[in-house]
Amino acid sequence: MANILPQPVQQLINNFARLPGVGPKTASRLTFYLLRGTDKSLAADLAAALLELGEKTRYCSRCFNITENDPCEVCADESRDETVLCVVEEPLDVVAIERSRAYTGLYHVLHGALSPIEGIGPDDLRIEELVQRIDDGAFNEVILATNATLEGDSTALYLQRRLAGSNARLTRLARGLSVGGDIEYTDEITLSRALNGRQEMH
Amino acid sequence: MANILPQPVQQLINNFARLPGVGPKTASRLTFYLLRGTDKSLAADLAAALLELGEKTRYCSRCFNITENDPCEVCADESRDETVLCVVEEPLDVVAIERSRAYTGLYHVLHGALSPIEGIGPDDLRIEELVQRIDDGAFNEVILATNATLEGDSTALYLQRRLAGSNARLTRLARGLSVGGDIEYTDEITLSRALNGRQEMH
Repeated sequence: MANILPQPVQQLINNFARLPGVGPKTASRLTFYLLRGTDKSLAADLAAALLELGEKTRYCSRCFNITENDPCEVCADESRDETVLCVVEEPLDVVAIERSRAYTGLYHVLHGALSPIEGIGPDDLRIEELVQRIDDGAFNEVILATNATLEGDSTALYLQRRLAGSNARLTRLARGLSVGGDIEYTDEITLSRALNGRQEMH
Repeated sequence: MANILPQPVQQLINNFARLPGVGPKTASRLTFYLLRGTDKSLAADLAAALLELGEKTRYCSRCFNITENDPCEVCADESRDETVLCVVEEPLDVVAIERSRAYTGLYHVLHGALSPIEGIGPDDLRIEELVQRIDDGAFNEVILATNATLEGDSTALYLQRRLAGSNARLTRLARGLSVGGDIEYTDEITLSRALNGRQEMH
């Protein structure tokens, strides 16, 4: 059997396969799509965008969100409510919350959640910076918007203890039915949280 | 709502989403995976591999497979059987046949199949080159190894007519049960082909 694939082709397949959720089959499908040249500039555009990602993005020195300029757009925006801080795990959480248009305060990105199994402890997250920021700031409320997972909940509990001395009110996001969600298909834990958190109709 | 994502991040998401089977959600998952830096050199490696793909690969001038050197490894290999030619749709088909280790002849890559719906006619494929090659060569057999699809079958029929004057024997790959396949789950067309093509036990 000949050494089947030219080395540059095999190399691109190998590198695609390093991406999460991309196996060898998908990697070779993507590579051969690029080779076929249906979208001529795609390989070059993708390469340029990958290089720019590292060169042009950094963490905001205040909220640790990903940004082109420091401070980031949210931190630099004087119209935002500086008395409320929303603590999230990942930059994508900021994107999701901004899309909801239901929040006008500031953010703090932890870059993960506590996870003893994966060996992620408080020092691996931006927790010291959070504590310092709350000490220095004048926040009335800190929303612990970590995920509704074991890790997210543990992180929120840990933060609750760490921030016990602060004057800010600590809150968590409400649990309940998804909007548009069927009760029939809602898992029992969510359903019990939705019942316990039931609200008066106005 | 702030302009949520830094421009380099949005740009990489947009470019990932141009890949087939990659939607905006997957594209942003991949981008944020790269941003997280779990696999530090990945963005740079992937960019380099993408650039190399265009720079270092070309089509073999004989068989039109993708190659680093012209002629390609198969065409340059004197131990291959030069009397048999296997005609395939795509470079990945060559990979699959080579993996089977059941073939030692030469290849010809058409780069597609006839498809009136997609507007792909004979001039869009490497068919003239194939006819010329068979005229010039001393092939005893030409295996029309196009896919077992409507397009693949049409292409094989078209080639059969185009190559009618040649001395080479024209063959098609056998149809039948997949090895390891259950009769129960085999579609009726395949099953009828498997019955019609039944072979004497030796």
